Amino acid sequence: MNIEEFFELSAGKWFSHRTSHHLADKQFEHGKSDIIIETLATDHPEVIKLCQLYEIAPDSASCGARVTWNSTEPEKSNGSTVLVSVPDADNPAEGKLLRQMNHTEKAPVARRYKIDSDDALTLTTEYETMWSEERLWFASPNLRMRASVLKHSDGFSIASFTSEIRMGGSPPAAKASETANSALS
Amino acid sequence: MNIEEFFELSAGKWFSHRTSHHLADKQFEHGKSDIIIETLATDHPEVIKLCQLYEIAPDSASCGARVTWNSTEPEKSNGSTVLVSVPDADNPAEGKLLRQMNHTEKAPVARRYKIDSDDALTLTTEYETMWSEERLWFASPNLRMRASVLKHSDGFSIASFTSEIRMGGSPPAAKASETANSALS
Repeated sequence: MNIEEFFELSAGKWFSHRTSHHLADKQFEHGKSDIIIETLATDHPEVIKLCQLYEIAPDSASCGARVTWNSTEPEKSNGSTVLVSVPDADNPAEGKLLRQMNHTEKAPVARRYKIDSDDALTLTTEYETMWSEERLWFASPNLRMRASVLKHSDGFSIASFTSEIRMGGSPPAAKASETANSALS
Repeated sequence: MNIEEFFELSAGKWFSHRTSHHLADKQFEHGKSDIIIETLATDHPEVIKLCQLYEIAPDSASCGARVTWNSTEPEKSNGSTVLVSVPDADNPAEGKLLRQMNHTEKAPVARRYKIDSDDALTLTTEYETMWSEERLWFASPNLRMRASVLKHSDGFSIASFTSEIRMGGSPPAAKASETANSALS
């Protein structure tokens, strides 16, 4: 699998269930969201804009995606972001992952991706005072899993796990319920 | 890493926090346990006994471990089991994993292990009517993570995640609190 195929396989509508373990105080929290992932062509205006923000030549992008989420638990919220992969010239199994800045970020954040020999995608993010690593993999084409750790300067703080069940393709929403019934096969 | 090193690194006392996502009805449950893992020499009587149960020559075992758990949530329970690794003759990165039978099993269950290039250990278990795969890896020497899926004949049913924090070595329990303070570094 390459990063472009991982994006393609991720496209669609997903039910996403996340649990976070707070390691220091042994508490946990959970959340549920509906997520829509759409792939974007590398000449899409949003992809070009994101490359420009990171000062990267748009023609070095290999694929883009828009991720839109609609959280239902613990509270209702929604949002969207755009992601763009920029493979390393000498090894396309690794590269930069660009993401739209959110309101808590003062500057573009450096993210790296890596596709390993098991077809899992590992994302690492370096913030000023923390570091995170997330591994994403498909148990089947309709069941995506994510496991991540967040580390601050004083140690690991949160381990999170997300299971994501495909609820239908995008955009043929009319077929969603039909697909949901067979999504776990 | 090889399977013997994975067992060695797992030895000690751990706080284990597990969350299971029930995929069909979108519910979840969680549990907390203290776990003690002790390595056993291949000539330990329990290792030899387990090899005999599986009709495997005891000298083909590469290492053994006793796992003892004490669950505190959602309800108190405790138990222990013995594990033995039997590497494949032609590729010791894979092999059989023997485990003591529990009261729900009528016959020894076939388990396989595999250490991958990322030093993660994957265990697959084939039951009569279901199949499970668990991936275990160390985020650091003091933070072990496990992600698993359970699949029945009609599809994936449960995705589970466990974070495990080292609470001290075994048996120097006197140092446990001191170790706990630095376990997340």
